[in-house]
Amino acid sequence: MSIQENFSEISTPNGTITFAIMQTNFWVGDIKGNVGKMKALALDAKARGADIVIFPELALIGYLPEDLLLRPTLAERVKITMNELAKIDGIVTILGYPHVDNHGTFNSAAILQGGSQKGFYHKQCLPNYGVFDEKRYFKKGRNQVLFDYKGLTIGLLICEDIWHEAPIKGLKDEGAEMVVVLNASPFEVGKQAERKALIARQSSTHKLPIIYVNTVGAQDDIVFDGGSIVSQADGEIAHEGARFLNQLIMATFDVSSRRFDTQVKPPLDLSEESQIYQALVVGLRDYVNRSGFKGVIVGLSGGIDSALTLAIAVDALGADKVYAVMMPYEYTSQMSLDDAAAQAARLNVSYTICPIHDAVAGLKSTLAPLFAGAAPDVTEENLQARARGVILMALSNKFGHMVISTGNKSENAVGYSTLYGDMVGGFDVLKDIYKTDVYRLADYRNRLEENPVIPERVITRPPSAELRPDQKDQDSLPDYALLDAILKMYIDEDLGYKAICAAGFDPAVVERVLTMVDRAEHKRRQGAIGTKITKKSFGRERRYPLVNGWSVTGEF
Amino acid sequence: MSIQENFSEISTPNGTITFAIMQTNFWVGDIKGNVGKMKALALDAKARGADIVIFPELALIGYLPEDLLLRPTLAERVKITMNELAKIDGIVTILGYPHVDNHGTFNSAAILQGGSQKGFYHKQCLPNYGVFDEKRYFKKGRNQVLFDYKGLTIGLLICEDIWHEAPIKGLKDEGAEMVVVLNASPFEVGKQAERKALIARQSSTHKLPIIYVNTVGAQDDIVFDGGSIVSQADGEIAHEGARFLNQLIMATFDVSSRRFDTQVKPPLDLSEESQIYQALVVGLRDYVNRSGFKGVIVGLSGGIDSALTLAIAVDALGADKVYAVMMPYEYTSQMSLDDAAAQAARLNVSYTICPIHDAVAGLKSTLAPLFAGAAPDVTEENLQARARGVILMALSNKFGHMVISTGNKSENAVGYSTLYGDMVGGFDVLKDIYKTDVYRLADYRNRLEENPVIPERVITRPPSAELRPDQKDQDSLPDYALLDAILKMYIDEDLGYKAICAAGFDPAVVERVLTMVDRAEHKRRQGAIGTKITKKSFGRERRYPLVNGWSVTGEF
Repeated sequence: MSIQENFSEISTPNGTITFAIMQTNFWVGDIKGNVGKMKALALDAKARGADIVIFPELALIGYLPEDLLLRPTLAERVKITMNELAKIDGIVTILGYPHVDNHGTFNSAAILQGGSQKGFYHKQCLPNYGVFDEKRYFKKGRNQVLFDYKGLTIGLLICEDIWHEAPIKGLKDEGAEMVVVLNASPFEVGKQAERKALIARQSSTHKLPIIYVNTVGAQDDIVFDGGSIVSQADGEIAHEGARFLNQLIMATFDVSSRRFDTQVKPPLDLSEESQIYQALVVGLRDYVNRSGFKGVIVGLSGGIDSALTLAIAVDALGADKVYAVMMPYEYTSQMSLDDAAAQAARLNVSYTICPIHDAVAGLKSTLAPLFAGAAPDVTEENLQARARGVILMALSNKFGHMVISTGNKSENAVGYSTLYGDMVGGFDVLKDIYKTDVYRLADYRNRLEENPVIPERVITRPPSAELRPDQKDQDSLPDYALLDAILKMYIDEDLGYKAICAAGFDPAVVERVLTMVDRAEHKRRQGAIGTKITKKSFGRERRYPLVNGWSVTGEF
Repeated sequence: MSIQENFSEISTPNGTITFAIMQTNFWVGDIKGNVGKMKALALDAKARGADIVIFPELALIGYLPEDLLLRPTLAERVKITMNELAKIDGIVTILGYPHVDNHGTFNSAAILQGGSQKGFYHKQCLPNYGVFDEKRYFKKGRNQVLFDYKGLTIGLLICEDIWHEAPIKGLKDEGAEMVVVLNASPFEVGKQAERKALIARQSSTHKLPIIYVNTVGAQDDIVFDGGSIVSQADGEIAHEGARFLNQLIMATFDVSSRRFDTQVKPPLDLSEESQIYQALVVGLRDYVNRSGFKGVIVGLSGGIDSALTLAIAVDALGADKVYAVMMPYEYTSQMSLDDAAAQAARLNVSYTICPIHDAVAGLKSTLAPLFAGAAPDVTEENLQARARGVILMALSNKFGHMVISTGNKSENAVGYSTLYGDMVGGFDVLKDIYKTDVYRLADYRNRLEENPVIPERVITRPPSAELRPDQKDQDSLPDYALLDAILKMYIDEDLGYKAICAAGFDPAVVERVLTMVDRAEHKRRQGAIGTKITKKSFGRERRYPLVNGWSVTGEF
């Protein structure tokens, strides 16, 4: 069954329809602000001669709204604001919103025109995997929805729908001549190529032009990367939106020739490093700006993780909002002091040296009566990391800057970090970046400017936590190239012990690494969030019980 | 459609069927251990004369297994161990397990007998709300399953199925004469009364005797409280299992009279305080024991939260595994020192006094150059809390005891706590207990013994964090009775600003409290887990975006 709405009363001066595709950032929960933004953008689109303006999936409430969708006042808020939006005159508005009625809540698209809601579509395919929990919130839509505009029959879909065959086939069977898809599709490495291949395939298979509008901007750990797509009925890409940027794409469709204009050239494909780097910048920027903090504070160690984090912070927020602190102790080398100072100088950020000898001495003095007779061990190393954590938090409390942490995915995976020490912070910029990729990104950033922002020695020196004399990461961990290869198979590819061993890795090393990953779950659970860039980020995408008896080898 | 299996080859000496209902604790992930336990229990049941032994929902892998259900080796592990279980001879075994085949993974019940799997049932109603994410993991079952035993036709259901009408009606329509329901039903205050009313209603409505077997024990933040139920076809409760304890219930069904024996008397209803207290004890015990820590360490403040936490820890683990530390500073009163010592003495636990003056002085000395000219504020209060956090973690690292934290639900709700300070720890015992309920539980615990374990003054003194001179909680927060009343409406009842104001509360206070709750989400996200006892615990049951623009008042 389909609901048909006729919009053909609008005159057709030239046999074309101009779509204003609003690849725009909407803030989760801020319904009032989002409505204001949509009204202004719709009026702007009208002034530019658009016939139809299209906003992405759940634009009204932002994505991912999580349990805000369960708030009892949601229905009322949606009703008031949708009435407000319907008043937009002289242009057809299509937007994503949560539809609440007696049957439940739906992830829906509304068609608004001339003071009223002309029709609505409910998403049929609800993702409930990975980062998505849509079946927690939404009922499944059961109907195709099409509407006529200037003699063209347009069908609506929402995000996951287009990844399946039935919804688009259903629209084609009902007579659709074009499909508009509203999306909030999170960034992952390689995702845009998948999207373009999908849209080209669905267009050419069903002989349908497609408008695919994606959200942009970040919400907590998720970055939406834009890259909206307009395809001809033969699958040719007519327009491709910028990545990671708000953009208005004007696409004009000739109703008689059934083709879009293509005056906008598709952007060049971005390198993988460039995509990841931009995702990290956008993720940090939106999180900090929406949190209300005035800026960020980063503890520099002289090492590569904090160096790269500092560069990303400066690119995200501007040097005047970034504060670097170096907190040396007995085991900090002169090289680290020099390199940290050089990083801050090259990026032109505030730089403070705050030796923690007194702090550590005070903690040790307090503990001395209790530790009498006990040999030094990792406790004393953690004490240094935790003293630094307390200092950073004190600076945050006193001056109003958010502490950002610098732990990478390799460290987070195996628990090579100190809970409440180097893990303190509101946002962990490199949380989903493996150590070997940290190096790639540092190289990438250095190549962007004539004068590299990260001193070369930071990249070439062996990594060390400098918590005891002559310590190296590789004293405690396999070489990072080996470690990351195993971690990517175990975490990102979700392979098991036997499959990883079968790929040629030493079974003893594999068992050790997998055991470390499983045992570090309690640390990860209390760690800061950070931007997802892989197919399997830590956090809501990988949900493990804390105390569990799973055997990593599967031996019985 | 139904799958019928005939088990009638077993002789029928006396026209009765004896069921061994195994209300038992299975450890999540530990398939090998769980199988060993089931084999031993099944043989024990056979020796006691049982015809059929019943294990709860997902007994093979434990509940909630979360993303362990996505591990690629799950199918192989299940196959091997189900073949092992099928070898149990001389008794029919019914158990919950994850069934993996070409159609996907199902939450299933198997009927095993004489070396093979005689049949299986797939859960039809998959909960995907609250703490449950079953649609993330499982496909929905579509078929009723019945089997005949000694001339009795028995139908199978799993947990959520029995809360809906269709599955049991389907079984009745197919000819079921009894229904066996496998459950992993989490504890909540008032839940057992709901379960008993449900089973009585479903039995009497459909004229079917029901065996409802529940899991017992804790997994992370969830406690399963047992209380298995056997009901006659008229809804009369014939057996009720103990709460919070492993128990074998032997229930004999007379096939001719169609009634269960009732020689086991239903236990007395437990008071609300008793239920909650036992849930907290079981939750902490299972978490600590499975984590591999040797014991726990608790920071005592002299206040009621740490006093109650200490009592629960002793009841959960024994006094010899509990270590209390008092960490006084300038603002710690003599009363607090006396009361903390008295608590430790009455519970007979190791007690250490560790003044933190040196630790705080060292941290202040390190910060002094950076704080020159800045007025003291909450930073200096947090410094004390964080020094205590570092000391506790150092003791944990050095001696191998888990730090348990003592934050209650009221504090967690409004963020009246210091991140990385009093929030440090692996488990937050009172996480889901409102402050006013902390008092009720302290009273309850004191009434259990002739000599109260919590000094009376700890209960009657005004609560204070003692982080500055003459500080009281009520300097920063509304009175706890008022605060908790608003919090319970906002969090547990999920009501909005207008509804709470309409209940007679001062709108300014309501707005302030709701705003505090929304702004503390980033603290909660990094806090320790703790046992769920309410209908809406913090954590996986209440999923909020960190930075969001939701307006608490809903004003536009």
